[in-house]
Amino acid sequence: MFDVAIIGLGCAGYTAAVYTARYKLSTLLVGLEEGGMGNTAAEVGNWPGEIEIKGPDLMEKFKKHALSFGDTVTYKIDRVSFLDYARNDTQMNARNDTGEARGFQLTLEGGETYEAKTIIIATGSSKRHLGIPGEEEFSGKGVTYCATCDAFFYRGKDVAVIGGGDSAVEGAAIAAQVARKVYLVHRRDQFRAEPYWVDRVKAKENVTFVLGHQTVEVLGTSKVTGIKLDTPFQGSDTLTVDGVFIEIGSDPEVRLPLQLGCALDDRGFLKVDNTMQTSVPGVYGAGDVTSASNHFAQFTTAAGEATVAANSVFQYVQTLASS
Amino acid sequence: MFDVAIIGLGCAGYTAAVYTARYKLSTLLVGLEEGGMGNTAAEVGNWPGEIEIKGPDLMEKFKKHALSFGDTVTYKIDRVSFLDYARNDTQMNARNDTGEARGFQLTLEGGETYEAKTIIIATGSSKRHLGIPGEEEFSGKGVTYCATCDAFFYRGKDVAVIGGGDSAVEGAAIAAQVARKVYLVHRRDQFRAEPYWVDRVKAKENVTFVLGHQTVEVLGTSKVTGIKLDTPFQGSDTLTVDGVFIEIGSDPEVRLPLQLGCALDDRGFLKVDNTMQTSVPGVYGAGDVTSASNHFAQFTTAAGEATVAANSVFQYVQTLASS
Repeated sequence: MFDVAIIGLGCAGYTAAVYTARYKLSTLLVGLEEGGMGNTAAEVGNWPGEIEIKGPDLMEKFKKHALSFGDTVTYKIDRVSFLDYARNDTQMNARNDTGEARGFQLTLEGGETYEAKTIIIATGSSKRHLGIPGEEEFSGKGVTYCATCDAFFYRGKDVAVIGGGDSAVEGAAIAAQVARKVYLVHRRDQFRAEPYWVDRVKAKENVTFVLGHQTVEVLGTSKVTGIKLDTPFQGSDTLTVDGVFIEIGSDPEVRLPLQLGCALDDRGFLKVDNTMQTSVPGVYGAGDVTSASNHFAQFTTAAGEATVAANSVFQYVQTLASS
Repeated sequence: MFDVAIIGLGCAGYTAAVYTARYKLSTLLVGLEEGGMGNTAAEVGNWPGEIEIKGPDLMEKFKKHALSFGDTVTYKIDRVSFLDYARNDTQMNARNDTGEARGFQLTLEGGETYEAKTIIIATGSSKRHLGIPGEEEFSGKGVTYCATCDAFFYRGKDVAVIGGGDSAVEGAAIAAQVARKVYLVHRRDQFRAEPYWVDRVKAKENVTFVLGHQTVEVLGTSKVTGIKLDTPFQGSDTLTVDGVFIEIGSDPEVRLPLQLGCALDDRGFLKVDNTMQTSVPGVYGAGDVTSASNHFAQFTTAAGEATVAANSVFQYVQTLASS
């Protein structure tokens, strides 16, 4: 039985693993894919000490650091449960009827199981979809949810980036480096994004701002040929593009903590206290999935939360050892 | 008038500066010394992505990153006050009688003044003293508060490290690399420190554990010659040493926020909410000085808190601009 299973292989998961390993806790790192959201960042400029680094390169540094302690790593987690419960049960808690801590069972997609005394949920978040006609149909055929990952494939072509937050505006800036023409389409007249990125995008000659227009359909034949707007822009309600980058935010990945009955906050994020413990004793959270750091999702906040979670796990495991 | 004055030149201060600069806020960085507590770490192994780096080298990376945006930096801050108040006043708040935001004045030791719309307090913490006879007298003559900084000067000599937390045990491990003999003196029988460090120290042949003994006096003539214990250890109540490294914790540096009437928590740390705002509107906190991150003081938690503080400052400054 591992002292701790860390679910998630992004900045929060790797940072938690560095700390739990230094606490000499036996650590299982488990996730679906390596690198998490960090892998989708083409250029990272706000990880302290790195003036500019590619997202995948930063994640590789985190991974190397985490694995330098010899932790066990596995993939494809399907479900997590209390050790003596086979089914979901909102009444369950981390101690059995006689008050003993029960620990947790992790089941991989192939059926393989692992056991751990504690869990750190570092599952991050996933990209939000528009839910318009053509979106699913052309997903992977011109529709993508990570401009910064996929812009490279649209060299010399025309693309639309949809959204008004940091990832949309940053995505447009990066798409503009390779694409011929970039439409930045946002349903409001103002951006929520950092002015830093808005200024950078304004300075690009090949970016056209399409503000106050909603995208109502993705058009195409075998692949994307354009998008349809709710009202005409420059005389037409259609923009002819080869790619559509949908960057309208993300949702916390709470499927696994919900299997344990962990409470969410009113925005749907994993609720944690100031020790990063969830509503279920022995289960902690860190990173984008949680309500912590004022819901601000950055590398630094994920790392800080993971540090506190690891410290709390260490203290919790000590209480198990002495009970 | 600067958008924000960041007080403190450690991990929290530099990280906040990276973020405020990227928000295109005019930023004044002000402090007493560069690098903060991070400069006193001989070896850092828990900054994600850096398997092993010297504290001063890591702080230099943070500093270069922060200053890459062209922020103004100044030193030797003496006091901070509301712009239209010359004296301390617990009734003061961030808006004047007509409801306008007032901003803040920072006065340097030489009398020079700066103005800022908001403040981020990132003043960190300072080392705790034992308060025993001989401690002040031999300070700098064998008594030091940073084993990791000063161990180098005791090559081939005998030293005592006093304390039971991470910094004491880590300090003993590092002192053991250069000193002939190291006594690790702790008044309790158990360490609070990370097992990682305790194990490392146990593996050193030249470290002697002196547990359950209180240090009651530093002995010396022109410089330290030993320490006196409350009860005999191996037949003597005196340990003959050339250096005494006192590593018994630290206190938050709250002198400046107290000048603004900021509330402290019950442990004396700067009280902040989940946006990192203090009890005074327009004044934010980040890093070791604050009550955040469950009082856990690490590079990662400082960086995470600074990130949230910078985001909150950005939002606060927007409200000033639109009022």
